Amino acid sequence: MDEIKVNATKPYSVYISNCSLDFKLLLEDKSIKNIFIITDENVYNNHKKFIDELKDRAIGIKILKPGEESKSLDTVVSIYNELLKANVNRETHIAAIGGGVVGDISGFVASTFMRGINIIQVPTTLMAQCDSSIGGKNGFNYKGLKNIIGTFYQPKFVYIDINFLKTLNEREFKSGISEIIKYGYACDESLFSFILKNKSNIKERKTKELLYIVNKSAAIKGSIVERDELDLNLRQILNFGHTIGHAIESLSYFQLSHGEAVSIGMYLESYLSYKIGYLKWEELESLRKLIEFFKLPYFNKNINYGEIIGIMQKDKKKISNNIKFALPDKVGHAIITTDITNDQIIECLNELKGRL
Amino acid sequence: MDEIKVNATKPYSVYISNCSLDFKLLLEDKSIKNIFIITDENVYNNHKKFIDELKDRAIGIKILKPGEESKSLDTVVSIYNELLKANVNRETHIAAIGGGVVGDISGFVASTFMRGINIIQVPTTLMAQCDSSIGGKNGFNYKGLKNIIGTFYQPKFVYIDINFLKTLNEREFKSGISEIIKYGYACDESLFSFILKNKSNIKERKTKELLYIVNKSAAIKGSIVERDELDLNLRQILNFGHTIGHAIESLSYFQLSHGEAVSIGMYLESYLSYKIGYLKWEELESLRKLIEFFKLPYFNKNINYGEIIGIMQKDKKKISNNIKFALPDKVGHAIITTDITNDQIIECLNELKGRL
Repeated sequence: MDEIKVNATKPYSVYISNCSLDFKLLLEDKSIKNIFIITDENVYNNHKKFIDELKDRAIGIKILKPGEESKSLDTVVSIYNELLKANVNRETHIAAIGGGVVGDISGFVASTFMRGINIIQVPTTLMAQCDSSIGGKNGFNYKGLKNIIGTFYQPKFVYIDINFLKTLNEREFKSGISEIIKYGYACDESLFSFILKNKSNIKERKTKELLYIVNKSAAIKGSIVERDELDLNLRQILNFGHTIGHAIESLSYFQLSHGEAVSIGMYLESYLSYKIGYLKWEELESLRKLIEFFKLPYFNKNINYGEIIGIMQKDKKKISNNIKFALPDKVGHAIITTDITNDQIIECLNELKGRL
Repeated sequence: MDEIKVNATKPYSVYISNCSLDFKLLLEDKSIKNIFIITDENVYNNHKKFIDELKDRAIGIKILKPGEESKSLDTVVSIYNELLKANVNRETHIAAIGGGVVGDISGFVASTFMRGINIIQVPTTLMAQCDSSIGGKNGFNYKGLKNIIGTFYQPKFVYIDINFLKTLNEREFKSGISEIIKYGYACDESLFSFILKNKSNIKERKTKELLYIVNKSAAIKGSIVERDELDLNLRQILNFGHTIGHAIESLSYFQLSHGEAVSIGMYLESYLSYKIGYLKWEELESLRKLIEFFKLPYFNKNINYGEIIGIMQKDKKKISNNIKFALPDKVGHAIITTDITNDQIIECLNELKGRL
């Protein structure tokens, strides 16, 4: 089992394992006797054995409906009710076993119940393992606005088990790959090279390669989080692909998965970067080809690109007039900029629309 | 204007002033141009001028119904709606102008909206000025449980204006006095002596004495908060009077004010301390006489004292079997203990019931 330490205000560890028994050993080791499980129907059905084995120390379990719709105030309230019924106290640890939705909603509940109880993140999707389970961001959607209500609240620890990835459907798996490409392309050239070189084994979900990319991504995320816990500057690098990606995700009425929207976002933002002279054509092409290899989209003709700017400007990250982007200026490195004008964005999008 | 620095994880200042103009100067000084005001009907009616003068920089105002009932999920949601309508962004500062209810609900909203926006606490009651506005605890009541949902979230700064105290009704003023007696009796002998010596001027709300006791209490609170931001140990000293007090407050169906319940709680807990040999009889009597001088209660025959233990055990602070108390062992000093058995509590209460 690997261990990555995240030196946030409240330090914690991310454990990466390929043996499902490790989680019980960790609970034993840390004398955690009293947990409340939050998961969703899919995860519960796929990993019944894993969850049932925890039942001797579980004082309750809440099984959510899968999907983004569960990220709502109603869900939050229904979990509060269950916690009260189960007599949860400050020694209880919430165990959030699932993807981003389970992790986000559980994190919010844990951070607000009794002014904060412990939470253990047990991410089961590739996206959650390499990204959302680390760093303490949580939240839910309200009035159509994604994550508009949420807090920063670091977990007690994160337990990543590679075995969960074996049961993921193709679309969910690819969605996670999209985030890992993001880490490589915007933050770490060696990770990007590794993915290029081992793309077939990654696609086939070979344990060795999965362990490597999850370890690497988690380490990058952890090191960024500890330097900018509250997303005030450095952490915004991780918005690469997400500024346009989030807008595209809403414009598709969530027909595109988060990872698909992000892969389109990464390509469009990198194209912007190429147009203003930061990225070379072959660097842009290496990204496009990798996206294509994993059968992720890099463009979608059905989206009304005219609306993108309006949506980006409503995004909660907006402070100045120009939109803030995290743009790669070479493979493995990105910068934060508000230098791109709206006209430049429109010009790029039209150019691509004509060409692709 | 006095300034007390609180070195919490996120450091901030508590300003104490007796000139209402200082608040606008502070906003000017800190280039805060965009505020959203949360207050209640009473405060708004009593301090229309103060609030209206802020309107040039206010992008919205939410006026709550006064009273504990506003500390609800419904209120939280209605404020979220107003913040969205007013297009609040991350540069906006919420200005919470009011007593504990306004401060608590505003703190929760600020900590959860957009994963945290700035909040300025402008406490208008004595209780909020000397206690609840400092330290970042917030929350609302749910299913009859006080503050069961909440977070720790430090303000940008706290502005305390002594002038607000002049319009407080007698009962609210006395409620604050109860907390200040707590600081003196449990934490600072010199403050307790000052109150004893200047009790008449304090009762008449003389500016000089008010400034002294608010300054002193705020400084004590600040120094405790910076050493134990998350209420894990030291800060529990401030529960003196509150362990029994909270139970009495609910048992009275909130007919007793918080301060009245706390003054009863302080006397009963000090009596416990006397019975187990910590406090001397004359120390206990000096507390009782001071409570009496301010026409606060130290006992209430109508309360069903048999139920107190059950209620205290449901309290969210409970972890071990015995109830945790902060007991003064001499004037100006208290200790945390779980040594008191339930039988001892019952014995004391019965003894007092017979005597008083």
